[in-house]
Amino acid sequence: MSNPHGNGDAFIVTYHLHLEPGIDVDQFARNICLEQTVELSDDLIVEDSIRDRVVGKILSIQSRSRHIYELKIAYQWQVAGHELPQLLNVLFGNISLKHGIKWVDFEGQSPVLPGPKFGLEGLRKAVQAWNRPLVCTALKPMGSSPNVLAEMAYHLALGGLDIIKDDHGLANQPFAPFEERVRQVQAAVLKANRETGGNTLYFPNFVPQLDDFSEQLALCRQLGIRGLLVSPFLVGLDMIRALRAKGEFILMAHPALSGGYFGHPHHGIEPGLLLGKWFRMMGADASIYPNVGGRFIFDLDTCQAINRGCRESLSHILPAFPVPAGGMSLQQIPQMRRLYGDDMIILIGSGLFREDPNLLQAARKFRLAVENPL
Amino acid sequence: MSNPHGNGDAFIVTYHLHLEPGIDVDQFARNICLEQTVELSDDLIVEDSIRDRVVGKILSIQSRSRHIYELKIAYQWQVAGHELPQLLNVLFGNISLKHGIKWVDFEGQSPVLPGPKFGLEGLRKAVQAWNRPLVCTALKPMGSSPNVLAEMAYHLALGGLDIIKDDHGLANQPFAPFEERVRQVQAAVLKANRETGGNTLYFPNFVPQLDDFSEQLALCRQLGIRGLLVSPFLVGLDMIRALRAKGEFILMAHPALSGGYFGHPHHGIEPGLLLGKWFRMMGADASIYPNVGGRFIFDLDTCQAINRGCRESLSHILPAFPVPAGGMSLQQIPQMRRLYGDDMIILIGSGLFREDPNLLQAARKFRLAVENPL
Repeated sequence: MSNPHGNGDAFIVTYHLHLEPGIDVDQFARNICLEQTVELSDDLIVEDSIRDRVVGKILSIQSRSRHIYELKIAYQWQVAGHELPQLLNVLFGNISLKHGIKWVDFEGQSPVLPGPKFGLEGLRKAVQAWNRPLVCTALKPMGSSPNVLAEMAYHLALGGLDIIKDDHGLANQPFAPFEERVRQVQAAVLKANRETGGNTLYFPNFVPQLDDFSEQLALCRQLGIRGLLVSPFLVGLDMIRALRAKGEFILMAHPALSGGYFGHPHHGIEPGLLLGKWFRMMGADASIYPNVGGRFIFDLDTCQAINRGCRESLSHILPAFPVPAGGMSLQQIPQMRRLYGDDMIILIGSGLFREDPNLLQAARKFRLAVENPL
Repeated sequence: MSNPHGNGDAFIVTYHLHLEPGIDVDQFARNICLEQTVELSDDLIVEDSIRDRVVGKILSIQSRSRHIYELKIAYQWQVAGHELPQLLNVLFGNISLKHGIKWVDFEGQSPVLPGPKFGLEGLRKAVQAWNRPLVCTALKPMGSSPNVLAEMAYHLALGGLDIIKDDHGLANQPFAPFEERVRQVQAAVLKANRETGGNTLYFPNFVPQLDDFSEQLALCRQLGIRGLLVSPFLVGLDMIRALRAKGEFILMAHPALSGGYFGHPHHGIEPGLLLGKWFRMMGADASIYPNVGGRFIFDLDTCQAINRGCRESLSHILPAFPVPAGGMSLQQIPQMRRLYGDDMIILIGSGLFREDPNLLQAARKFRLAVENPL
């Protein structure tokens, strides 16, 4: 392999292995290299060039603690053909069906991992907000008419929120079909912006069946929508890449259905990698995650790892916004700012509705809570 | 709710809950109904009609064992809008990010869950094979040229295999680009069929980036390809539905990347549901799974549950073929037939290559092993 360090022909994947006593770590690692490529045992590979060019190369195996090892493997990019579905397959396809393998890191550059188009600075510019966290809420509840949602969005925009997104469960249901909802809400937000001189953005939830992809996208384009909410595990991870390739929309990723990979301590995908670095590499400008202290399971270390995955310096890839969410309230904002710094989007949904039934007032309080220096 | 039993306006989802001591099961269940729809606590729902029509209805909660409960919830179909991505979201979107929730069953009828187009009988008819398991292998290893793969397929087809599929890692890599590979392999298999009078089918691995979906499909159509191998978690679960909606191709599902949902005993998705009933409902005519005794983790009960999910009688939905695989050998065939019955496709990949370096001979032995009555 000409360049095993991920900055050219090869990419590098890191796993933590949790091995039962008696398992030979070298053989286990070698089996991963074979399983993820040729799906043959070594002695059945006839062509030496395939063993050389196609099977992964073990770069290092380091003991981390009792029974736990860190394994780094380099693969030539050609095994993934620079296509995202096959890249996912090499990284965690078949071995997802084994035990004791956690995918924890990835290094490599490819057109299919271009990073955000707008990124942290581009999104700040779009909403004209500097030196403070951005504030965001979600239109809800599912079952509301487009008219009700638009009225809600109008008041929230008047109150000065930066981003108003659909709840990720608002799809194309009969009570608020995609086209009607997006038309009405976008019009309401633009009206509020004209009245306030503000820059509130509306991000519709983009969760089309494949057949409706182009039509829904054309509608968003026509209405001057600037950003979309996308749940990669609901619509397919390649959808983020396909949207990013178009380069038209700010992309906010939602973690729905991703949680299967996080439930086991020693198997699956590290949340900091998947929801942080990986979603960002695929093209997300912002990544929503369930914050510690809310309705979900992540601890503070996991949340900080996601923040790092979104924001840490990577060559040729812009930083993205982490979006802590999932049961937050205005009272938690000072602590979130102290812990995470101000380069985040704070997403408060139901907590904002609870704050004040007058949504304009609630939004104003939310905005004020991030404008004061700590 | 007019019809809470899943045969009309509603669908029913079943979970097994594993609750820590002190957690109130009724409240936990109610929170799932809210989380998966309105994402609001009960007291913040303003419109009674939303509480009635949109929030899930608890049908039953039954204690199964210490700390474990079976919960059934009915949702009106309109919350999913008869679209697959949003249906997945209601079933396991946000709660995938919690602990102690295993999705174990689903009942309901919808155009997005049409079941197989061809099914068990349709696939038997396509290969003209009755009263025996079908035999299938995978072209490999990745890195081989289209010419080598076509030569391999030719001999395997001469030997009488029913189905020759691509390894699911053969995508669109430079060593065997999709178009060139599919053209050459399909030509080789058709040539063998002309010589033997046989009915071997070639199923290319269909793992396109979204941009290439239509073009790759058109090529398959033009070449007279009858079936496709599809990995729903690599290309997005809606891809299976989209292909099924076209109704042109026999669909064989591969479980790559699905394993994250199976690693934890008390959280995730039951393999028998996901790889059996659910893939079948989405439209898979056959579903590959890692069989007990191979390189992967499922036990016999899990494998039998997948078999049941594929084959059990469901109104208006055809049965599908279970495809036990993942490190099988010819020696295991009699036991597999005794355990599973003959309505299965036996997929032996590397074990066939090990059986005999002469692939025509290896394929003949494989075919013979299923032709003899037990």
